[in-house]
Amino acid sequence: MIDGKINLVIAGSIGIDTVETPLDRKENILGGSASYACAAASFYTKTGMIGIAGTDFPEDYKDIWRNMNIDLDGLQIESGKTFRWSGKYASNMDNRETLSTELNVFEKFSPLMPKNYQDAPYLFLGNFHPKLQLDVLNLSKNPKFVLIDTMDLWINTAQDQLIKVIKKCNMLTLNESEAKLFTNEGNLINAAKKLIELGPDFILIKKGAHGSILYSKDSIFLLHAFPISNCCDPTGAGDSFAGGLMGMLSKLNKISLETIREAMIYGTVIASFGIEEFSLDRFTSLQNNEIEQRIHDFKNMCSF
Amino acid sequence: MIDGKINLVIAGSIGIDTVETPLDRKENILGGSASYACAAASFYTKTGMIGIAGTDFPEDYKDIWRNMNIDLDGLQIESGKTFRWSGKYASNMDNRETLSTELNVFEKFSPLMPKNYQDAPYLFLGNFHPKLQLDVLNLSKNPKFVLIDTMDLWINTAQDQLIKVIKKCNMLTLNESEAKLFTNEGNLINAAKKLIELGPDFILIKKGAHGSILYSKDSIFLLHAFPISNCCDPTGAGDSFAGGLMGMLSKLNKISLETIREAMIYGTVIASFGIEEFSLDRFTSLQNNEIEQRIHDFKNMCSF
Repeated sequence: MIDGKINLVIAGSIGIDTVETPLDRKENILGGSASYACAAASFYTKTGMIGIAGTDFPEDYKDIWRNMNIDLDGLQIESGKTFRWSGKYASNMDNRETLSTELNVFEKFSPLMPKNYQDAPYLFLGNFHPKLQLDVLNLSKNPKFVLIDTMDLWINTAQDQLIKVIKKCNMLTLNESEAKLFTNEGNLINAAKKLIELGPDFILIKKGAHGSILYSKDSIFLLHAFPISNCCDPTGAGDSFAGGLMGMLSKLNKISLETIREAMIYGTVIASFGIEEFSLDRFTSLQNNEIEQRIHDFKNMCSF
Repeated sequence: MIDGKINLVIAGSIGIDTVETPLDRKENILGGSASYACAAASFYTKTGMIGIAGTDFPEDYKDIWRNMNIDLDGLQIESGKTFRWSGKYASNMDNRETLSTELNVFEKFSPLMPKNYQDAPYLFLGNFHPKLQLDVLNLSKNPKFVLIDTMDLWINTAQDQLIKVIKKCNMLTLNESEAKLFTNEGNLINAAKKLIELGPDFILIKKGAHGSILYSKDSIFLLHAFPISNCCDPTGAGDSFAGGLMGMLSKLNKISLETIREAMIYGTVIASFGIEEFSLDRFTSLQNNEIEQRIHDFKNMCSF
């Protein structure tokens, strides 16, 4: 549990998910990009959440975040139902099908930024409409480092607005397939070259079980995922990775290739824990010494 | 060009390929697992080839190998046509379809091992029938380190013979999908755990553009592929990777986690050159300083 001034603000979705895997099915579990990202970041830095939930949102779920010492001053509760998502994973756990999406209160989201969040030096704009991402960014006072996530939906339906907000961010993250879609490039390195022309200093491409690639104008960093044999539910892995990365980067509080690479390692490891159980369940029992042990093992696996 | 006693013997297929990519099509080009693997290894160590070709095999193609100083005493020329393969790559260059396979003289292959090959300390059994792989292994006098490759065909049709020869090898290499097929395991780490029970000390899983994983009883090593933006023809990349790895390992002439990891880096880099042009074309112009520069760049991309 980390106290102190808010060092990192994370805006994103808060959801109630129903997840089906080849082995199990869980209904109405805690999910959403802000939920996973804040939980992951909370192991490394004091984190504030910006998001919206409905009046149906269980108090128990808020307690899960409170127990991680996540600041909830930026959480709006509006009358109506919380955003809901349900999905089903194929047998390889890599491919998933979205069964249903109900935006509910998320549709009328107008982000607010509490006073104690406005000076936070690190900001993570999780995956939601680029117009709202820009609103959050404009509410933040001179942040030192801004990471933005996005998805195919916004690339296809709101690309102009997306490009406008990306231009103001330091790092863009997206999946391999989304990077190729965005740039109409079949080759990932060529896709990254085009994306960096949009303005950010770094492009962070997520490759799921195959790891991630950090691209900048004069360097590339290649990182595998941490190999686990007990993947239970991959939902939120990308959000946990990015949240963990921003948590560690804000803890290190220095922007360099070295610190970003180190933060990617911490993001990778925290995400590998997250998928060992459904929802945030693994995070609620996770201890710092377990993280440090896995960081140690992971660095050994990547060294030569 | 490397002279001296033969340090590494590579047995495998020799083929005449027709390859179609989204941008180009080449007919009757030099291919085959032994061809790619020997070419890659020849940059690091003195290599002898075991394989079979037909009387139609062009003298020019033998000259390509001769110019790399590959020893051809183990190359049999038999009356009939050389093994032929044709394939077509999808737009992402990851997926390919085999259009035709003609075994031709390969069907009557009975491997011989020239006297000057028999004491070579390093042996790479490229992908062909496990019965023939065992024949080659039995012709070798007490090799220090044996790598065996295989494919789905033998896993499905000759699994007992395959298991028998794998048991006698130090390292098994195969693709991610083949590792899962072989063990009936959806998770790669669980698949590797089962494969190592077959006897080898190391399982080397190839993940194409996503790199490779080395698994042993007490360690894992994770390595990305070298990212290139100009992939022309991925044919033979796995053979070049394994051949380059064995070439460097036999040059280092010490078996340890450290030397195998280093050899994997050299295998990865040589394979990344190979796919920049069709057939062995890139290897015929490749200079040692280009390899060393890319090794340097690659290590930077993987360091933290």
